[in-house]
Amino acid sequence: MNDLVENVVKGDIRAVARLIRDIDDGIPGVREALKALYPHTGKAYVLGITGSPGVGKSTLVDQMVSHLRRKEKTVGVLAVDPTSPFSGGAILGDRVRMQRHSLDEGVFIRSMATRGHFGGLTQSTRSAIDVLDAMGKDYIIVETVGVGQDEVDVVKSAHTTVIVVIPGMGDDIQAIKAGILEVGDIFVINKADREGSDKTLSDLRLMIDMDQKKYEDGGWKPPIVKAQAVFDKGVEEVLEEVEKHRAYLLETQGEIDFRRSPKRVREELMDLVKNRVIEEVLGKLTETGDFDAAVEAIARGEKDPYSACDELVLPRLEIH
Amino acid sequence: MNDLVENVVKGDIRAVARLIRDIDDGIPGVREALKALYPHTGKAYVLGITGSPGVGKSTLVDQMVSHLRRKEKTVGVLAVDPTSPFSGGAILGDRVRMQRHSLDEGVFIRSMATRGHFGGLTQSTRSAIDVLDAMGKDYIIVETVGVGQDEVDVVKSAHTTVIVVIPGMGDDIQAIKAGILEVGDIFVINKADREGSDKTLSDLRLMIDMDQKKYEDGGWKPPIVKAQAVFDKGVEEVLEEVEKHRAYLLETQGEIDFRRSPKRVREELMDLVKNRVIEEVLGKLTETGDFDAAVEAIARGEKDPYSACDELVLPRLEIH
Repeated sequence: MNDLVENVVKGDIRAVARLIRDIDDGIPGVREALKALYPHTGKAYVLGITGSPGVGKSTLVDQMVSHLRRKEKTVGVLAVDPTSPFSGGAILGDRVRMQRHSLDEGVFIRSMATRGHFGGLTQSTRSAIDVLDAMGKDYIIVETVGVGQDEVDVVKSAHTTVIVVIPGMGDDIQAIKAGILEVGDIFVINKADREGSDKTLSDLRLMIDMDQKKYEDGGWKPPIVKAQAVFDKGVEEVLEEVEKHRAYLLETQGEIDFRRSPKRVREELMDLVKNRVIEEVLGKLTETGDFDAAVEAIARGEKDPYSACDELVLPRLEIH
Repeated sequence: MNDLVENVVKGDIRAVARLIRDIDDGIPGVREALKALYPHTGKAYVLGITGSPGVGKSTLVDQMVSHLRRKEKTVGVLAVDPTSPFSGGAILGDRVRMQRHSLDEGVFIRSMATRGHFGGLTQSTRSAIDVLDAMGKDYIIVETVGVGQDEVDVVKSAHTTVIVVIPGMGDDIQAIKAGILEVGDIFVINKADREGSDKTLSDLRLMIDMDQKKYEDGGWKPPIVKAQAVFDKGVEEVLEEVEKHRAYLLETQGEIDFRRSPKRVREELMDLVKNRVIEEVLGKLTETGDFDAAVEAIARGEKDPYSACDELVLPRLEIH
C-alpha cells in the first residue's frame, strides 16, 4: 500500500493506472490509498469539458492537450462515459483518437465507465482527479459525454468548465442552456463553419446577458469562443480564456480556497457519507433473506414497495 | 389523505397535479398516498422516449399523443428534465409546445425537474408513473432529455423504450449506441430528410445485427423507423412498432409479469431502501454539529474527506 502511494506521488504510470483501475472497479482497499494521497493533492488545475454527443469534445480535448504540451505542461485526461452502464466498458474511440499522445510521458489518459461501485461515477471521477493531482499533473481535463445530472456533478469538481455546443442543435438547446448556463465558465461553438453558427452565438449571448446583474456585481461573464477543433482553429483562444478564468478565480477566491471551499467540501463529504452508509446497510440487508422475501411479496402483488421499504429499513437501522 | 387517493383514482386532475407536485417537491407525506395508490396500478402501458438534445423528442411525443387520442386512448406525459438541477424548474418549452393538448381532458402533461428529494429523479418519475397509472391513463409516455445514467434508469421503468437519433451526429454516436442499444426496443431516425440519414440507418442496423444470436434465440430485434415528426411522417409507424413490441412482451413474459418481474422489483426496492436509509442517516448527522465540524476540518486541510467519512459513519450506524 505504502509502496503504491509512494509510486503514485513519484509519477509512476503503472501505479497510477492500477490505482485508477481499482477506483473504477470499486476495490474497497482504494480508500486507504486515497487517504494517504490526499495531502499530496490540491496543486493541479482541473478543467471540465462537457456538451452533447457529437459536438466534438474529444477532438477539442485532443488539441488542447497538444497546446498544453507545447507549453511544457503535463496533462491528465479522464474521459467519463456514463452512457454505457451495462457494458461497463470504456470508450474505445477516445483511446484510439488520443493515440498520438500515447508515447508522451507527459500525458496520461484514462476512460472511466463504471458506476454503482464505490459511490458511482461522480465519486470515482473525483478520486481519479485526486490521483492525477497527486501524481503531479499540471492540468487535469475531465471530459464527460452528455448533459445529464452525472455530467453536471462531475464538472462541478472542475476549476473551469467548458461547455461545447454546435450550430443548429434545434429547439432543445433552449432547455439545455438553462441548465448548463449555470455551470459553464466558457462556451465553445465548435464546427463553427456550419450553418446557424451566428444564430447559436446570438442565442448564447442572449442567455448569458440575462445574468447582467451578476456581472455588474463582479461575477464572471462566460466568454463564447467559435472554434473548429478539427482544424485547430479557436483552440488557443479557448486556453487563453481558461487562463483568464483561472486568474479571475485566484483574484476573487484564491485557487486553493476554491477547491477546498466549505461548500464544495460539504458536497463531496455528503456524497462520501451517503455512499458509505448505503454500502454498509445493503451489505447487511442482503446477508439475511429478508430483502429477497420482500421482493417476492411485491412481485406476487401481496405488498407495495413503499411499505416493504419501511418494514425493511426502519426497525433495522439505529443511528447514534 | 384518503380523499386525495380517492380523487386520484377517480381521475381528478387537480388531485393528480397536486400529488405529482408533492412527489417532485419531495413532501414526505406522499409515501402514504403512494402506498394506498399502489393496488390501483399496473394497468397502463409505459413508453420511454429518449435521445440526445435536439433530436426532436418533444415533437415526436406531441404527434404520438395526437395519434393515440384519435384512437380514443387516454395519455399521460412526463417530461423529465435532469439537465436543470440548479434552477429546479420544469421545461417551459415542453409545456408550451404541448399546449394544443391542454384543453383535452384525455391528456395529462407534466414536467419533472427536481432531484435530491425523495430519492431523486428516477424515484420521483417511477412514483409519478404510478400516479398516472392509478388515475387510469391507457398510455404513459416518459420523455427524457439526454443520454446519461439518469435517463437510462428512468426508461428502465418503461415497457417499450424508443431511442430517437438524427442523421449526422458524428463519431460520438458510436459510443452512445453501445450504451443505449441495450435499452432501445425501437429506434427512430428523426429529421430523416437530412443528409446522412442512410448512413445512420446502416450504422444502426450494423449495431443491432451484432446481437444476431439473441434474435435467433427468440429475442426482440429492435426495428428502425425513419421519421419526420414535424410533418407527422413515420409517427404512425412508430406506434405500430410499439404495439408489436407490446404483443411480443405479452407473448413472451406476460405484460404484468414484466412490470412486476422480480428483477425490476428488486431494482426499485433497492433504490427505495437506499434513499430511505440516506434520508434517515443524513437527518441525524446534520442534527448534531459533527458533520459541519468535519467539513471545516477538511476545508482547513487538517483532515482528508475519506477519513472524515469513516469517522462520521462507522461509530454511529448500527444495523440489526
